[in-house]
Amino acid sequence: MGKTDEMKWSTLYSSRVASMGHSDVAEMLKLSERPEVISFAGGLPDPAVFLLDEIKDIFQEVLRERGRAALGYGPTQGIGPFREWLAERMTGASRPTRVTECLVTTGGIAAVDLICKVLLDPGDVVIVGEPSYLAALHVIRSYQGRFAGVPLDGEGMEPDALASVIGELKNRSLRPKFIYLVPSFQNPSGVTIPEDRRRKIVEIAAQNHVPVVEDAAYRDLRFEGEAPPLLASLDPLNVIHINTLSKTFNPGIRIGWVTGPEPLIETLALAKQGQDQCSTTIGQYAALAFATKGLIDRQITRSVEIYARKRDAMLAALDKYFPEEARWTRPEGGFYAWITLAGKIDTEALLPVCIEAASVAFGAGPSFYHNRQGKEHMRLCYSYVPEEQIEEGIRRLGALLSGIMIGETP
Amino acid sequence: MGKTDEMKWSTLYSSRVASMGHSDVAEMLKLSERPEVISFAGGLPDPAVFLLDEIKDIFQEVLRERGRAALGYGPTQGIGPFREWLAERMTGASRPTRVTECLVTTGGIAAVDLICKVLLDPGDVVIVGEPSYLAALHVIRSYQGRFAGVPLDGEGMEPDALASVIGELKNRSLRPKFIYLVPSFQNPSGVTIPEDRRRKIVEIAAQNHVPVVEDAAYRDLRFEGEAPPLLASLDPLNVIHINTLSKTFNPGIRIGWVTGPEPLIETLALAKQGQDQCSTTIGQYAALAFATKGLIDRQITRSVEIYARKRDAMLAALDKYFPEEARWTRPEGGFYAWITLAGKIDTEALLPVCIEAASVAFGAGPSFYHNRQGKEHMRLCYSYVPEEQIEEGIRRLGALLSGIMIGETP
Repeated sequence: MGKTDEMKWSTLYSSRVASMGHSDVAEMLKLSERPEVISFAGGLPDPAVFLLDEIKDIFQEVLRERGRAALGYGPTQGIGPFREWLAERMTGASRPTRVTECLVTTGGIAAVDLICKVLLDPGDVVIVGEPSYLAALHVIRSYQGRFAGVPLDGEGMEPDALASVIGELKNRSLRPKFIYLVPSFQNPSGVTIPEDRRRKIVEIAAQNHVPVVEDAAYRDLRFEGEAPPLLASLDPLNVIHINTLSKTFNPGIRIGWVTGPEPLIETLALAKQGQDQCSTTIGQYAALAFATKGLIDRQITRSVEIYARKRDAMLAALDKYFPEEARWTRPEGGFYAWITLAGKIDTEALLPVCIEAASVAFGAGPSFYHNRQGKEHMRLCYSYVPEEQIEEGIRRLGALLSGIMIGETP
Repeated sequence: MGKTDEMKWSTLYSSRVASMGHSDVAEMLKLSERPEVISFAGGLPDPAVFLLDEIKDIFQEVLRERGRAALGYGPTQGIGPFREWLAERMTGASRPTRVTECLVTTGGIAAVDLICKVLLDPGDVVIVGEPSYLAALHVIRSYQGRFAGVPLDGEGMEPDALASVIGELKNRSLRPKFIYLVPSFQNPSGVTIPEDRRRKIVEIAAQNHVPVVEDAAYRDLRFEGEAPPLLASLDPLNVIHINTLSKTFNPGIRIGWVTGPEPLIETLALAKQGQDQCSTTIGQYAALAFATKGLIDRQITRSVEIYARKRDAMLAALDKYFPEEARWTRPEGGFYAWITLAGKIDTEALLPVCIEAASVAFGAGPSFYHNRQGKEHMRLCYSYVPEEQIEEGIRRLGALLSGIMIGETP
């Protein structure tokens, strides 16, 4: 039955299934699950950051105070008081926001899904960084979007390079539908776009009538230095801001949001009617209680402590064990360091070998490229792996890489 | 700014936005919210059915026993033990099911969204009943599907009519991608397809290589009589079964599922990576605890008691107050009765008048028709309105209708 059955279904599939390809996310999560493997692959929060006791109390409180209202359907846009809190939070981040400019979503990727549903026809162009967040690439592929890539450097997307890509598209009569960016502690590179570049990027985008989608998933996890302004604060009319509570509350509850101009938010809400109707009611009330008790801030403090220590452990181990030809980013926050190896190493080919020979996993570069380039790169996530395993994992990985560089077969 | 801004965004929209039209669901829910209105419009559960104290205990238990694992990301397909429970439940309903044939979704509509994402290219044909569940119509429209309608009678979809629609499509070289059905206590008509028709429908579907999507959202809410078999039990290889815990646990938690052949489930999971990555972890653990403690069954018993009384109150009031030209279904379960009025009444035009003049709301027929026909019909939902308001609401509505029939202007 297996084969015939598979063939039968595949004849029914939409053309977007072929565009989706396979899932790098699912494969990375699987690698993270094998107990003997030290995994720098999946981009997961450390469970130690969750405020378990406080969350227990909050669920009791929500069910006691909101009662059965916490269990029914909620409005598609999100429950009123939670949207009010979102509007206040965005206003506090210098993006003055009305409640009607906020839409609650079922996590951050659901927000990207809605934006693509509303903006992309097959063949439409989206501008992305090289590299980019792989789940966002997956969503764009699933809407049969085409990519125009802009290479990133140590300060993220370079404005002149962006302008020239937009110019080339214009010469081919193509108007990109949006620019997708993770401006702070980018996934996968860990780099942050500084303020001057942010100002230039939103200016170029506005001049060319191309909206910017700003994914701020990691922004609150800053270990040191000053936060540059939100893109959404620099151009509220042309920036679609998306965010998630997965890092500042927990991912198990599935809450994210979009902030943007009201006409767009209304259309996204219409699309959400056909995505999941509404996001979790009890979860939104719990998130609201968590936020208003100051626990988001407390969790951020705890997270920054834990992740900064892990980042330090990883950077120290990289200095100690990685071959001198290798280069890496030094993230000021977030989950990821990004490694550039000598050109002859193919990280995609290396990954299965590395898991077998060294029991270490990482994110291979091509997973993060719209065009599957970037074989000389790897993403190392320090957030999830136990702190005491970081040095050993990097030591093994470094030994393997050094061996390859001098011509050993691993 | 308003107008310009709206125009600016609309030039960026995908062609599917035009297909989506406006949202009948959102408007119906809004009508249900006005406190002075007796609303038979929204298809909501009675909050009294929720087992609030038990749910409070379960959240404590889950956070105590599963700890931080309940707060992290879960697998895209759903957490293992919950999928095992789903597989057992489906097997118990005579559809022998492996865990790998189950995918957890963020409610029932998210399942329809995934199915359309995987199966529909723009212009692809879906066979639906006349009338049909309006949110499913919205999803299909958002994927730019085309509709082929099959009129329903008091026993749901008539197999010969289905066969002839498929035949006509075949003559035009069109192969429908699937048939969408709510076989038990259909939304909106309240009718249930009897066993002999079910057998014929799945046979016709299989002969013509057209899968059936069986939406079993209301099936467990049977007040009387014997349940006919699941379509999925009659043809496990060709029926995609979707279901939700919104009626048997609560909608605030957002959990549904799809059961179907494994190759399809894998592709739906790939699509879910780009929809919301995973459904709520804490919610799945809570649902599992609720189910294994026998509380789903207890909630079903309680729901059936409450909804059967409300159904009885509505049918009695309809007999007493509705004009004799009107006809209606007598549902054996679920949330809805379906009214057929004399041809000269246009329920869509009547609705705003009725809310103003009589403070009563209902679902206007055209909302449930892919082609916006059905003006002579209305859906009356008895599940949500307080029992003591049912007679008064139907009395007012009946008086208004009787007046129109003798030529009064309401």
